[in-house]
Amino acid sequence: MIIVLKREATQEIADEILSRIEQKGLKPLFMPGTERVVLGALGDERVLAELNLDGHPMVESLKPILSPYKLVSREMHPHDTIVRFGKANIGGPSFAVIGGPCAVETEDRLRSSASVVKAAGAIGIRAGAYKPRSSPYSFQGHGPEGLTTLRTIGDELGLPVVTEVMDTADVEAVAEKADMLQVGARNMQNFSLLKVLGKVDKPVLLKRGLAAKVEDLLLAAEYLLAAGNEQVILCERGIRTFETATRNTLDLNAVAYMKQKTHLPVMVDPSHGTGVRDLVIPMSLAAAACGADGLLVEVHENPVDAWSDGAQSLYPHQFETMMETLKPVLAAVGRDLA
Amino acid sequence: MIIVLKREATQEIADEILSRIEQKGLKPLFMPGTERVVLGALGDERVLAELNLDGHPMVESLKPILSPYKLVSREMHPHDTIVRFGKANIGGPSFAVIGGPCAVETEDRLRSSASVVKAAGAIGIRAGAYKPRSSPYSFQGHGPEGLTTLRTIGDELGLPVVTEVMDTADVEAVAEKADMLQVGARNMQNFSLLKVLGKVDKPVLLKRGLAAKVEDLLLAAEYLLAAGNEQVILCERGIRTFETATRNTLDLNAVAYMKQKTHLPVMVDPSHGTGVRDLVIPMSLAAAACGADGLLVEVHENPVDAWSDGAQSLYPHQFETMMETLKPVLAAVGRDLA
Amino acid sequence: MIIVLKREATQEIADEILSRIEQKGLKPLFMPGTERVVLGALGDERVLAELNLDGHPMVESLKPILSPYKLVSREMHPHDTIVRFGKANIGGPSFAVIGGPCAVETEDRLRSSASVVKAAGAIGIRAGAYKPRSSPYSFQGHGPEGLTTLRTIGDELGLPVVTEVMDTADVEAVAEKADMLQVGARNMQNFSLLKVLGKVDKPVLLKRGLAAKVEDLLLAAEYLLAAGNEQVILCERGIRTFETATRNTLDLNAVAYMKQKTHLPVMVDPSHGTGVRDLVIPMSLAAAACGADGLLVEVHENPVDAWSDGAQSLYPHQFETMMETLKPVLAAVGRDLA
Amino acid sequence: MIIVLKREATQEIADEILSRIEQKGLKPLFMPGTERVVLGALGDERVLAELNLDGHPMVESLKPILSPYKLVSREMHPHDTIVRFGKANIGGPSFAVIGGPCAVETEDRLRSSASVVKAAGAIGIRAGAYKPRSSPYSFQGHGPEGLTTLRTIGDELGLPVVTEVMDTADVEAVAEKADMLQVGARNMQNFSLLKVLGKVDKPVLLKRGLAAKVEDLLLAAEYLLAAGNEQVILCERGIRTFETATRNTLDLNAVAYMKQKTHLPVMVDPSHGTGVRDLVIPMSLAAAACGADGLLVEVHENPVDAWSDGAQSLYPHQFETMMETLKPVLAAVGRDLA
Repeated sequence: MIIVLKREATQEIADEILSRIEQKGLKPLFMPGTERVVLGALGDERVLAELNLDGHPMVESLKPILSPYKLVSREMHPHDTIVRFGKANIGGPSFAVIGGPCAVETEDRLRSSASVVKAAGAIGIRAGAYKPRSSPYSFQGHGPEGLTTLRTIGDELGLPVVTEVMDTADVEAVAEKADMLQVGARNMQNFSLLKVLGKVDKPVLLKRGLAAKVEDLLLAAEYLLAAGNEQVILCERGIRTFETATRNTLDLNAVAYMKQKTHLPVMVDPSHGTGVRDLVIPMSLAAAACGADGLLVEVHENPVDAWSDGAQSLYPHQFETMMETLKPVLAAVGRDLA
Repeated sequence: MIIVLKREATQEIADEILSRIEQKGLKPLFMPGTERVVLGALGDERVLAELNLDGHPMVESLKPILSPYKLVSREMHPHDTIVRFGKANIGGPSFAVIGGPCAVETEDRLRSSASVVKAAGAIGIRAGAYKPRSSPYSFQGHGPEGLTTLRTIGDELGLPVVTEVMDTADVEAVAEKADMLQVGARNMQNFSLLKVLGKVDKPVLLKRGLAAKVEDLLLAAEYLLAAGNEQVILCERGIRTFETATRNTLDLNAVAYMKQKTHLPVMVDPSHGTGVRDLVIPMSLAAAACGADGLLVEVHENPVDAWSDGAQSLYPHQFETMMETLKPVLAAVGRDLA
Repeated sequence: MIIVLKREATQEIADEILSRIEQKGLKPLFMPGTERVVLGALGDERVLAELNLDGHPMVESLKPILSPYKLVSREMHPHDTIVRFGKANIGGPSFAVIGGPCAVETEDRLRSSASVVKAAGAIGIRAGAYKPRSSPYSFQGHGPEGLTTLRTIGDELGLPVVTEVMDTADVEAVAEKADMLQVGARNMQNFSLLKVLGKVDKPVLLKRGLAAKVEDLLLAAEYLLAAGNEQVILCERGIRTFETATRNTLDLNAVAYMKQKTHLPVMVDPSHGTGVRDLVIPMSLAAAACGADGLLVEVHENPVDAWSDGAQSLYPHQFETMMETLKPVLAAVGRDLA
Repeated sequence: MIIVLKREATQEIADEILSRIEQKGLKPLFMPGTERVVLGALGDERVLAELNLDGHPMVESLKPILSPYKLVSREMHPHDTIVRFGKANIGGPSFAVIGGPCAVETEDRLRSSASVVKAAGAIGIRAGAYKPRSSPYSFQGHGPEGLTTLRTIGDELGLPVVTEVMDTADVEAVAEKADMLQVGARNMQNFSLLKVLGKVDKPVLLKRGLAAKVEDLLLAAEYLLAAGNEQVILCERGIRTFETATRNTLDLNAVAYMKQKTHLPVMVDPSHGTGVRDLVIPMSLAAAACGADGLLVEVHENPVDAWSDGAQSLYPHQFETMMETLKPVLAAVGRDLA
């Protein structure tokens, strides 16, 4: 931590802070300059947070030296974490595509969409039973019945399923039916939920929040690992910016960046990342090219009739095209479809 | 709803959509143009959402005519809603200031900060027992013991208390101790939490999310009203933008805008809205000048030593200055301190 | 400057950088830590920029200690700069309101709008002869004829005029006719233009860019001062964010922040800052309350018929109301209308 | 254009607007609803802008039906435009890589960097003689001497050169020396510059502004085409968002979107788009995969020593790796290196 003191800070102030740094077991540094005094504190910065120096009236600014996340960092854990999802490994050399409709609507519709997805080579099914919707008047999902339908179809087709959990009260029920639990963008910093999921023996797919910096996402994952769950997959799904031509701005920089900083697998959701059906295939290829470990894609047997997210759901034939088009791109970067 | 069809859409497509609009009890409109066919549907747009036209392959764009929120709209309810908090009314002619530390630390510290706040004229106390923190290694709040301490001090000083609830599992416990329940920015779209709070017989302070549009905030409030709770206060607390000189960008435009669009009271949190202690007073005055109904301000008996948010907490003397400075500005806009 | 080295950096690398720092006449610091080596360089950071350490493969991050702007800083120049505009002083105790239409349309229309503005107490007139418009098909302004009309009306009413200059080729012509030259948001980082304006003997009104950090704005002003022009007024006019309810997000935090960091006057443009006529008055009051030195407001004799920016232009009676409403708010903060 | 009237608008208001629409030669539509009256105007919306309906006090909102750009639209011009740059075609089946240092520093250094770029297969050289820098104390470029150096090296190596022009006063000089003129992000809406470049007989590379929507970029290009220059290449180079881990957020959504909406070639600048050397290669591959027509990449013979942008400049061996890695990805999407 670098501590820049205000111009009017006295030597006594500097000494007081230096001794508090030392008491925490960190190495204090004194750097007097012509315009300002600068102090340093070297060591585990998590301890330093307890000094609450950001509230000090003589401190002009604080600059951390090291990243605040530890367990998710590649520095602490250089090898890629591989998350098991059904029979597939996510985070290894194979690229994992998970597809399905936005929501579980009816059993027949889910069977139909999931069959398309399986036939085209996806390794798992996605569909929501609990749906976070901006308006209370929009379809909110079928809840427990939706979970049962999802499990039924997953078993029938022999594919694992991932679905969103929105509330600590539902974690047990969702964990019982699903093979992976998804934390949605709007709940990425629902820390109560993260703490409970850190105790669950199922993998967690953690989606980036609409206004979450990459560091916020890594710290949210740190909650899961710190609580004991190491089976975590990160998911870039677009951030909110001033651009209105697309629903969100898919931040592929973040994918390449996170692959360097963390050992956790990183997936991409080009459906929410664009909000526009016709942009899903090109952005899927881009995600594969820049190092993502897989995709989460919305597909519907008949998007015209979908109860939610129809505008960004692929038609079955588009999903098939996407899978075919992905193969040579993955080969070009030394990977294959899982 | 205005429905712009793609250039290649045929008459059959237009007819099919028009008949679906009619079946929903809405008035269909056909508007053929030289470059495009445009359709209209007039009536309650909540019904229209069920047509899922955004997924239609021949629909180029959809443009709503009316706002998607209803119960929170001033059109439906022209008179200001007044929320009772202890002995004070929020949303009427008096301006309500609620102050206190970021978190309940110890009983003595809370007593000390709360006494300052009371002496200076605040109508209530704020302090967190459950703290949402970006890092799992930061102080997470004292939980139930914090609630008890907060209730004790509130009773001792004769002031109502507001505190954050982060999880549906804690709603009952928080509602038992607090006079108002706060939904934090990171939970603004935790719809499970909103649905439960909609059934609680206590007022709710709903803070705007970091990336929430004003419309998203109004729709989140709509969840509360639709579930039966009409005692809702909105709170602008800064949004996340590219600016880094301040922690957030306080969006006072949103305050003036919401006062015109909704009957619910609107408060401002200049502490999170700036993140910088020395900016809190000027932004408090600005909030009062543009029509806010009150403030939520962080004050600490000794910010240097605060366990969280020290950099944005006022010193006691600053809070007193703020209250004194507010009075003439409020008088200038025809209001007074509650 | 704090220089954090990568984990794999050797002692040789550190020594090499330290000696380069010393050669620039700065004080080098060596701070070995348990996880990283950190270096420091104390002194004028403008010199340090020449070392180009951000390109060094063994440098993980660079953190400036001091602000990169100097001449505009209040540290270097503690007293408020006062800019003379006609008979008024901007930046002193009086609050300056400049009003007028978006563009010079016809001489009669300008006379009509400017008369309203004068009668209500404005100290100057604004109107554009050169208009930056997103579309090439929108009205682009009358150019030189517009300047002449503006000068005529200004002389007729005895009020100074401010107008935008978009091109170095026009600076001389605009400087001849106008009392103050405006740099629009889209040209805030048109450094060629700033360099030329730094040589002009007329005050410059520098508007913040749509994506400009406060520091970028202060550095743009630094261009003007470094070239010799100290008559500079900064103008907050809203930044571009994800919010769509308003045209821009007026960042009043920036006003309070800049008043603390720089000695230059800071004005606010609530017309562009909101884009919505009905929000202009409340945001004008907020600007006055938080310490702005004046306003730049669009007013039109008949906004329904304005050739540009009609939606955000005040009606004459609204401008009069604004001026009346401002008076008590200004009195409350110890100021008056210029 | 769809015109939503306010609730209180009378029939007379509607009639007045409808007759103004008709007078402009557009087809007026009257759509009375239960809550609001909605009007329509079908035809060329450029004409409609002259009605200035956004300023009307009884108009609640305006919603354009058609895009405001025409000449750049693929609807008007379905076939890809191909821009000739030296011996290469940009916008056709071959993928064009242009490389070089941020700035022209010395002739020897430029020769060295440019030779690397040529040897690895680039089709042209980029380097700045006029440099837009946030601070007036940073290196500003060599100006005319830089242009001469650039021309010399281009001729020596037999490669065309592209360089930035910042001011209308320099257009002639730059056009004389360069094979393509670049408009930088900060000048994307310098409309005076665009109008002059629209008359130049050289191709223009137009970079997206930091806060420019895709539509703003297309409208800026429309300025060039409307003035007569059809040799225009668009360049995505990252937008400014809240994320701080990278210098900008590279918006590849915009690339895929623009390839569908316009016939103009679209290039990507992954150097500015990330600001981080180690992210340039993955984002180059992503750009190639999602349909970009080429890359603009910063390469320096010795980035440690670069006078600007060292942190994002590739080492020569990295540029070679990038070119090799691109080949199979391009083959996977049916293209090759130009």
